[in-house]
Amino acid sequence: MLVLSGVVPTPQENRGGLQDMVHTDLVRTITRYARTVREPALVLQELDEAVSRAFGQGGEPGPVYLDFPTDTLRAEVPLRVQLDEHFRPKPPALLMPDAKAVDAAVELLWSARRPLVITGRGARGAGSELRRFLDKLGAVYLDTGESRGLVPDEHPSVVAAMRGTVMTEADVVVTVGRRLDFQLAFGSPAVFGGARFVRIADAPSELRDNRRGEVELFASPTAALAALSSAAGDRPSAVDREWAAGLRKRHVERAGKLRATMASTPDGSDGRMHPNRLLAALQAKLPRDAIVVADGGDFLSFARVGLSCSSYLDPGPFGCIGVGVPFGIAASLAFPDRLVLVATGDGSFGFNAIELDTAVRHRAPAVFVVANNGAWQIEVHDQASTYGRVAGTRLQFADHAGMARAFGMNAERVERADELPGAIDRAFARRPALLDVVVTPEAVSADAKSGLAWVPDLQPLAAWDDAERAWRQG
Amino acid sequence: MLVLSGVVPTPQENRGGLQDMVHTDLVRTITRYARTVREPALVLQELDEAVSRAFGQGGEPGPVYLDFPTDTLRAEVPLRVQLDEHFRPKPPALLMPDAKAVDAAVELLWSARRPLVITGRGARGAGSELRRFLDKLGAVYLDTGESRGLVPDEHPSVVAAMRGTVMTEADVVVTVGRRLDFQLAFGSPAVFGGARFVRIADAPSELRDNRRGEVELFASPTAALAALSSAAGDRPSAVDREWAAGLRKRHVERAGKLRATMASTPDGSDGRMHPNRLLAALQAKLPRDAIVVADGGDFLSFARVGLSCSSYLDPGPFGCIGVGVPFGIAASLAFPDRLVLVATGDGSFGFNAIELDTAVRHRAPAVFVVANNGAWQIEVHDQASTYGRVAGTRLQFADHAGMARAFGMNAERVERADELPGAIDRAFARRPALLDVVVTPEAVSADAKSGLAWVPDLQPLAAWDDAERAWRQG
Amino acid sequence: MLVLSGVVPTPQENRGGLQDMVHTDLVRTITRYARTVREPALVLQELDEAVSRAFGQGGEPGPVYLDFPTDTLRAEVPLRVQLDEHFRPKPPALLMPDAKAVDAAVELLWSARRPLVITGRGARGAGSELRRFLDKLGAVYLDTGESRGLVPDEHPSVVAAMRGTVMTEADVVVTVGRRLDFQLAFGSPAVFGGARFVRIADAPSELRDNRRGEVELFASPTAALAALSSAAGDRPSAVDREWAAGLRKRHVERAGKLRATMASTPDGSDGRMHPNRLLAALQAKLPRDAIVVADGGDFLSFARVGLSCSSYLDPGPFGCIGVGVPFGIAASLAFPDRLVLVATGDGSFGFNAIELDTAVRHRAPAVFVVANNGAWQIEVHDQASTYGRVAGTRLQFADHAGMARAFGMNAERVERADELPGAIDRAFARRPALLDVVVTPEAVSADAKSGLAWVPDLQPLAAWDDAERAWRQG
Amino acid sequence: MLVLSGVVPTPQENRGGLQDMVHTDLVRTITRYARTVREPALVLQELDEAVSRAFGQGGEPGPVYLDFPTDTLRAEVPLRVQLDEHFRPKPPALLMPDAKAVDAAVELLWSARRPLVITGRGARGAGSELRRFLDKLGAVYLDTGESRGLVPDEHPSVVAAMRGTVMTEADVVVTVGRRLDFQLAFGSPAVFGGARFVRIADAPSELRDNRRGEVELFASPTAALAALSSAAGDRPSAVDREWAAGLRKRHVERAGKLRATMASTPDGSDGRMHPNRLLAALQAKLPRDAIVVADGGDFLSFARVGLSCSSYLDPGPFGCIGVGVPFGIAASLAFPDRLVLVATGDGSFGFNAIELDTAVRHRAPAVFVVANNGAWQIEVHDQASTYGRVAGTRLQFADHAGMARAFGMNAERVERADELPGAIDRAFARRPALLDVVVTPEAVSADAKSGLAWVPDLQPLAAWDDAERAWRQG
Repeated sequence: MLVLSGVVPTPQENRGGLQDMVHTDLVRTITRYARTVREPALVLQELDEAVSRAFGQGGEPGPVYLDFPTDTLRAEVPLRVQLDEHFRPKPPALLMPDAKAVDAAVELLWSARRPLVITGRGARGAGSELRRFLDKLGAVYLDTGESRGLVPDEHPSVVAAMRGTVMTEADVVVTVGRRLDFQLAFGSPAVFGGARFVRIADAPSELRDNRRGEVELFASPTAALAALSSAAGDRPSAVDREWAAGLRKRHVERAGKLRATMASTPDGSDGRMHPNRLLAALQAKLPRDAIVVADGGDFLSFARVGLSCSSYLDPGPFGCIGVGVPFGIAASLAFPDRLVLVATGDGSFGFNAIELDTAVRHRAPAVFVVANNGAWQIEVHDQASTYGRVAGTRLQFADHAGMARAFGMNAERVERADELPGAIDRAFARRPALLDVVVTPEAVSADAKSGLAWVPDLQPLAAWDDAERAWRQG
Repeated sequence: MLVLSGVVPTPQENRGGLQDMVHTDLVRTITRYARTVREPALVLQELDEAVSRAFGQGGEPGPVYLDFPTDTLRAEVPLRVQLDEHFRPKPPALLMPDAKAVDAAVELLWSARRPLVITGRGARGAGSELRRFLDKLGAVYLDTGESRGLVPDEHPSVVAAMRGTVMTEADVVVTVGRRLDFQLAFGSPAVFGGARFVRIADAPSELRDNRRGEVELFASPTAALAALSSAAGDRPSAVDREWAAGLRKRHVERAGKLRATMASTPDGSDGRMHPNRLLAALQAKLPRDAIVVADGGDFLSFARVGLSCSSYLDPGPFGCIGVGVPFGIAASLAFPDRLVLVATGDGSFGFNAIELDTAVRHRAPAVFVVANNGAWQIEVHDQASTYGRVAGTRLQFADHAGMARAFGMNAERVERADELPGAIDRAFARRPALLDVVVTPEAVSADAKSGLAWVPDLQPLAAWDDAERAWRQG
Repeated sequence: MLVLSGVVPTPQENRGGLQDMVHTDLVRTITRYARTVREPALVLQELDEAVSRAFGQGGEPGPVYLDFPTDTLRAEVPLRVQLDEHFRPKPPALLMPDAKAVDAAVELLWSARRPLVITGRGARGAGSELRRFLDKLGAVYLDTGESRGLVPDEHPSVVAAMRGTVMTEADVVVTVGRRLDFQLAFGSPAVFGGARFVRIADAPSELRDNRRGEVELFASPTAALAALSSAAGDRPSAVDREWAAGLRKRHVERAGKLRATMASTPDGSDGRMHPNRLLAALQAKLPRDAIVVADGGDFLSFARVGLSCSSYLDPGPFGCIGVGVPFGIAASLAFPDRLVLVATGDGSFGFNAIELDTAVRHRAPAVFVVANNGAWQIEVHDQASTYGRVAGTRLQFADHAGMARAFGMNAERVERADELPGAIDRAFARRPALLDVVVTPEAVSADAKSGLAWVPDLQPLAAWDDAERAWRQG
Repeated sequence: MLVLSGVVPTPQENRGGLQDMVHTDLVRTITRYARTVREPALVLQELDEAVSRAFGQGGEPGPVYLDFPTDTLRAEVPLRVQLDEHFRPKPPALLMPDAKAVDAAVELLWSARRPLVITGRGARGAGSELRRFLDKLGAVYLDTGESRGLVPDEHPSVVAAMRGTVMTEADVVVTVGRRLDFQLAFGSPAVFGGARFVRIADAPSELRDNRRGEVELFASPTAALAALSSAAGDRPSAVDREWAAGLRKRHVERAGKLRATMASTPDGSDGRMHPNRLLAALQAKLPRDAIVVADGGDFLSFARVGLSCSSYLDPGPFGCIGVGVPFGIAASLAFPDRLVLVATGDGSFGFNAIELDTAVRHRAPAVFVVANNGAWQIEVHDQASTYGRVAGTRLQFADHAGMARAFGMNAERVERADELPGAIDRAFARRPALLDVVVTPEAVSADAKSGLAWVPDLQPLAAWDDAERAWRQG
């Protein structure tokens, strides 16, 4: 992302001009690059560099910030320095892997009995090479929220429902463009046992965080996976086929059971439907190529598991809840031909709910579904169980459909599960649209139960934290 | 303001824990103090220091940030270090002025012919000493948004409507707890001529920015003003009474004319009412001790002038629009016995409109009035006149009353000026309440006209910028 | 201190110009103020502000940094903005204390039985008011390295040699312009028992760090002390005169004994003299108004105690060893009529030894005495006792006199104590001069013994650390 | 470089502990990575990451800083987290170039008529592939201080003495691991005309600063050069052989003439020898594989040109003068079998002259030659010509040989050119050794003459600045 901004004219800087502050200092730690452009002759060059940084050319992609004092904005860029090179598109270069490292990785992988592949941000766009690699090696596969949809559920490597088991049993773990962060137990031997790691990434942050690879391939994931498949040639994989097939079988069973359970989860004692019923109803109607944006505290914990799709966005490892509505608007404008579904809790919805107005004005054809349980429920649960009282975290079951209609959006409130299919059909048909679905706050999510909300010291989840403590003590 | 926050447990820091980032680096430049408290034994001491900094004890007051890794939060503070001193209230100390400087100031001020007193943030709470000082000296007086209401409109020193004239004519200018920032032309001789300055402040930022005082009193404004009045004793002021009285007379006439004009400003060609009509109707109903929160881009430019009250808040010199709704909620909870009016444009309203839900849940008895002109009008004006086309800055005339009702708030839409008095009465009576008042986007505000929006190089307003250029060239 | 610097021209900034880096970011955390001045019209205003900050006007005094792109340096400052006010000297204002707080302090102090006064940086210049205050109250007194010489050794309040005892026994402790930092056990009750504190300072950092005062006087120390003496009037002090006199008596005995012991400390087994012999010989010749600059690791530990003088400088709480030579040069140029003695260890001497050349060229009449024990002895001691081997911390007994002579300075090497008096006389007579005095590395300093070098967790000294642990456990 | 440091124990942090400051904030902007390691369990992981960053694995190589609170230093690293992977050496991976980009580069290069290759930091270690590439393509070549010695003077591509001409005439410029910084006129068309660029680098800072490459190869220079040679195969180069040979011929003539001139440059009017005489005498004795460290202001300007060698270090683009002595010590300890010559001016020498003592103690077999002109001559020249007076920049012709002998080093003072050969032989034979060679301050260096010292606005040299202005105006 490239953010362009203005700043007080130089002659008023540090005098108390309107909005006189040093923007770049403020954003320094949350951007890849932040500069104030003071020299008109360098404007094009700075923009060029900013775009390169944002795209991660030679570094990590991410947000870039430039601001311009208004005197720079008013100045002329000398004609002669307006070089062609600044206007030329720069196709992203492929980083090719070192051949020796490729050979070492092949040796390790093709000797492995229980190889596991995990992908993340850096693997986006590498789907076909990834599937070819999985097929050749016969490894099992876990995706993460960052790279959902690269490998379809039908692929025999997918064992998502067996996540815990496979992390423990794998003997070689390949990370492709993925940090070994809290979502992967920091790659700790307490969870991954004696597994050896192969790290593949084009960004240092995804190459060696927490665990060093026995082999590390600093290369574009597409290029690295292609090189591995090619170097392996016809070499037969040593994978324990029985193990892999067994995992897949149990995954299929569990996933099926989960879908069935979700669709029939009973209402709460308050008569309100369980969030899983909503998710099941949505999943049933979701086109294969839908883009799902999940948002929320408690509700995200259900939606992360309950919705399957080929493109997926959520608040990510910084937990920036509230992104649902704006992400959904942007996605629906960028991909007007695909169905964009925003599935959000009511607490998170509030952050940017006003952007429904934006969606209407710009005719952004997204569908917004608010799972309205009248609470910051993950906090309610934590407060009640830790302190025995609840303060400031109960919301009203507000009329979000009424709000949406006030901005001119099609909107319905849904209070019973049997009304869902029809309401969903209508919403999908009349986009932008909003469904305000009342759900029970009694449903206790995995995150509320297992620790993410109460932050154990060594690992993010209670089970992993226990394992880590046990392991460290030998 | 004191912000307390949590941060990732120390053992997960820099490993990619959930929300693993250095908060203090992010807020460093916008806080007075920002610390991560890692040592349980120092928790009380850090809180003590944080509170002192926030109150500006020995520095400048402002926001303070502390965060605590969750392992610190879980730790015990040793009983012995829980000293009484940390729990004791610390009454703010008065900073007393240097007697020699006081004498020098009296000499300068009591010899002045056309003294002008201007107050700001630091003068809050010094109202009675300020009025006594004005009475003794016979100076004329200008307030600023930071210290609105210290001196009532009836006071003979008040010449607010003659701001431009008095800034040019004064021979001695006293700033009391006020920066000479863009709102005061940086104190430039181009605007203030040969006036000499007396600076009074308990914070360096309000003591010597842009212009050095011929006398500078680093002291609590209350104490400094009392010391000046006392040191002057019965010394007769040299003020040109005719000049002062003449300014006051013209001020009264202009202010009266303004009120009259506002109440009768004709509708736009689109048949929608002028924002001044709304302001006049509000002013007519406003109790003397009302708290007004003004917010907006264009609308703020009208409201700043059109509303008179004893307590006033607005987005301030950083132009942080969107503060209206939350400021109003907070003020109404802190002062439940006073009427709190939020007067906001529709663009700024959107930032935090969702907090209407908060107002309802917490029964915050504020009145929210949205001047709905369906636009970021100051931007529309700028785009149209500068570039000849308008992009992304036109809003819908959204149904904000409908939105408020969706959250359970009393709300009405008002489209005709003659409906205002009744609607205002009903809103004042059934708080929290919202009025969504449709106004014409054709009204051109002072800020849109005079330059604040297009940011001249040397001064924030076109007239001052012209004066500055002329003056610099000698 | 005000540092002015140049920086790359704006058009070459961020292009890789010569020395293209952001200086202000580098010095931000070690300066009070750091700015790049880009606007020629603001040059005088920035210099004015910089000087004010450096002098601590309205904040804490300290280093200030300004840099100027060379294009700013080449630009003209418009004549009209060269205002008189920027060239006018600004006499430092006195901060006067709050009368109520003064009364509260008098009540507490004049009721105290065993009051102790401790001074620091902020008390400089307040000597006569301090002595008057001590006389009136009858308190005992400890100085610190920051404010050495305010109260002469002969004054009956001085009990420096009883430091440990008096810190434990005092019932009220007054800090005057002094932080309660590691040198004062952080003011911990573990060391100061139940003593109540009165804090007097004109800088927040010396007002409330670590311990809150029962009374806190934010005021210029001179003004605060004067106000206390004046408010006390003829009120008789409640001081336990016997206690105070007893402490003084023991102080005088100990100090006498120390002087005697120092002068006769036997040589090491290596036949080299003990550093105390050197210090005793220097003290015997030192004029009353000498300025002493002490520097070193181990040697500082001896010199801090062994040299008494009216003005004293050392590396301070950041332990910036190496300051001896440059401080001495500066002091001797600033006070050419007073004897300036630099007493430094050979390790620290090396940092800036080359500046002897500067001393010669600028005829800076300082005397440099190097206590040459051929080692970073405090490190040698630590390495040997902790790890059993010594690496990289033994120096040669280099010929520093030879080095000084190479730069044209009078210099002698002294190897026997009985040569000292004559050598010192010659050095004092032919300044600048250097004495390279060989001393034994066998002398074990207090810092090497007691913990400063091995940094206990809770307190800087082993004894205090033990006390702190015992106290915290109740 | 990896810097490890200690910091105050956590319980004393922010309390005013000894040396209580945030080191990481201080070094942030001048390191690649700076962290405080608070968690004992992460010590090995942090060290691992620090080493990777210092070596530039996946980023830019450079200084890395870690500090450890003393409580971390005293803690145990749990045995189980002491993983093998942290102790394993990690061989640097090769970054391979994208094949498409290689083809594009070959097409451009093998069609070029007047290709120029320039190397820098990133090309170190790529000497043999570089020479193979130059031979195949027939390009001309310029080195820079960062990569001196990769291509021997005898190689037909070397045209160093024709630098100005070749920069103007080249039609394609290849940078290999080299920034287009001030030393290369920022790659401006004002100097390089219409040349097209090929950029080769494994660090973004050397890939696209100031000029975008028509082709950009983000790859290890060795790998990139090999790939280019290989892809070109037998394709005949289009180089204008006559042009290349002509340049080489003129280079050989000029270089020969320079050598001859240097050896016979007449003394100054003060009878002191010209620095070039010293350089000529040194060059005559220098072994082929000598390591030269040049340091100084004015003298560096002579030495940069006058000394030819296979390994070369100087203060670099930040102009960190004073590095000569320590760099020389380090180099001589790292390469005891090669002759290490430090050629430094007397001003720069002073910064770290005391480290001669270190050289003696550690028997670092370097030769230090001080060109002693008794001045910061580049400043003297600037002050005299700009302001007409000289302040503080004249030194004494100090007896640096005497100083060296005081530390036990072999040292001679040389005042006449005919004494040089013998003195140099003796110094080379009895290392460490120092020659203090008196030279005339009348010699005016290129930097003093041409602008580096007075910093023009657009380009670092007067001639380039003129060209840039002319070009920009079209």
